[in-house]
Amino acid sequence: MKAMQGYCGFLGLLVSALLVGFLAVLFTLVWVVHYREGLGWDGGSQEFNWHPVLTVTGFVFIQGLAIIVYRLPWTWKCSKLLMKFIHAGLNTIALILAIISLVAVFDFHNTKNIPNMYSLHSWIGLIAVIFYTSQLLLGFLTFLLPCTPPALRAFIMPIHVYSGLLIFGTVIAAVLTGVTEKLIFTLKNPAYSTLPPEGIFVNTLGILILVFGAVVFWIVTRPQWKRPTEPNAKLLQPNGSTPEGTDYSITGDFGNVDKSDEDGEAAARKRNLKLDEVGQRSTM
Amino acid sequence: MKAMQGYCGFLGLLVSALLVGFLAVLFTLVWVVHYREGLGWDGGSQEFNWHPVLTVTGFVFIQGLAIIVYRLPWTWKCSKLLMKFIHAGLNTIALILAIISLVAVFDFHNTKNIPNMYSLHSWIGLIAVIFYTSQLLLGFLTFLLPCTPPALRAFIMPIHVYSGLLIFGTVIAAVLTGVTEKLIFTLKNPAYSTLPPEGIFVNTLGILILVFGAVVFWIVTRPQWKRPTEPNAKLLQPNGSTPEGTDYSITGDFGNVDKSDEDGEAAARKRNLKLDEVGQRSTM
Repeated sequence: MKAMQGYCGFLGLLVSALLVGFLAVLFTLVWVVHYREGLGWDGGSQEFNWHPVLTVTGFVFIQGLAIIVYRLPWTWKCSKLLMKFIHAGLNTIALILAIISLVAVFDFHNTKNIPNMYSLHSWIGLIAVIFYTSQLLLGFLTFLLPCTPPALRAFIMPIHVYSGLLIFGTVIAAVLTGVTEKLIFTLKNPAYSTLPPEGIFVNTLGILILVFGAVVFWIVTRPQWKRPTEPNAKLLQPNGSTPEGTDYSITGDFGNVDKSDEDGEAAARKRNLKLDEVGQRSTM
Repeated sequence: MKAMQGYCGFLGLLVSALLVGFLAVLFTLVWVVHYREGLGWDGGSQEFNWHPVLTVTGFVFIQGLAIIVYRLPWTWKCSKLLMKFIHAGLNTIALILAIISLVAVFDFHNTKNIPNMYSLHSWIGLIAVIFYTSQLLLGFLTFLLPCTPPALRAFIMPIHVYSGLLIFGTVIAAVLTGVTEKLIFTLKNPAYSTLPPEGIFVNTLGILILVFGAVVFWIVTRPQWKRPTEPNAKLLQPNGSTPEGTDYSITGDFGNVDKSDEDGEAAARKRNLKLDEVGQRSTM
């Protein structure tokens, strides 16, 4: 019964995350298509509009999914390597979309003779892209190259997990400053300060992005929803640590330390796994 | 030797957090005094200027200190109750400063006939203040009222820890959108887009605030810097959980799950504690 509650709780939050993330992408599209000039690649406003669309789709929504992908209980029977490829693949797609979104805004600025890189938004955004690229490269070298020593993986993992969440938060901050900028620059008649429908709509988009980040942050920091340690991993290593060092993930015990809770948590995870088998059967 | 490295690492990061946080407050003061109209309480720009000063001082710097105050090894021998009072006290000061900063900006808007609460910045900021107030009240009722059942404390703690960090991140996002707004509104001649000295200076302030958040986030999520479980706590409870439920804190094992690492972590914490005694003797 408790396991079922835990499983339903996870599903409820996952559906919320997907719904809020999807809504944020939809709101961005409605913003640029309905309230603004639509999409195009002409060096003008239509090209600029790819900037928010691709950022929210890739850098916020897809990055958010990449962060929680290890938490899906029905993937726990898939190999860790497959899950790493999915995690890295989603992040690569997000990075490509972020880079295209940068090209769009630089192209727009250059066509319109607007200076680049002067605003706080642009500084935070560029920092986020540079760190995200480094994170992806370092992640690939550390966790996907088969020759990387397990000790190095174990050393890098907490840093990888920390910087992943930090970059995600920084991207959200960059998006919110970008939305602020754009609304002030474009809402002139009627002015932003009179809170026209576009203002309310895009402010709501900002709040949706914040809520999406909050739900992802909650999901990824619950210990009971963490992918279990590989069953054979401990047997392979004399010291009981995992050979890949990849189970040192963020949730760890974000909110639980005592051994007694650790055990309770492991049991809860086992229950979730069993329940997942039921879930899989029922959907097959 | 390893313990000394861990202790020095903590001190290094703590000094960095204090330095960056102090620099952010200093930059905010220089911004409003040197580049803007200075400080006053006249309904005009001088009154508005209290808004960034009090927000960065209270809502960012002091809240950040309140978050990491349990991590200071030299406080581990103080009673948990004392530390709770310090944590709650710092957060109360931060809330009071945040509320005064709100009064300043509403007063300024009303005097100048500028509408309130239309921008994304104001929406995020108000959400942050409301959640922060609720967090403080709920924290008081749960962890400081002696009659609250331990089971309720244990249930609330992971939520308290999660929402504390989420609110801190939201406050930083609110500040960065606020800085963006203010720079666009005020930097007209020379324009913000020509990146005048004030633009560079205040963009740097924004980055400092982001770095402060990143350092606090790192410190608070390292398991080895977590306040150890009260020595008598486990003895008092038949199930081995702490009576207050207050050791279910954020670091948990942010980056460490395996039991073997748990043990290593506990040992590291013990070493830190011993080292701390040395540190205290040497400074007495």
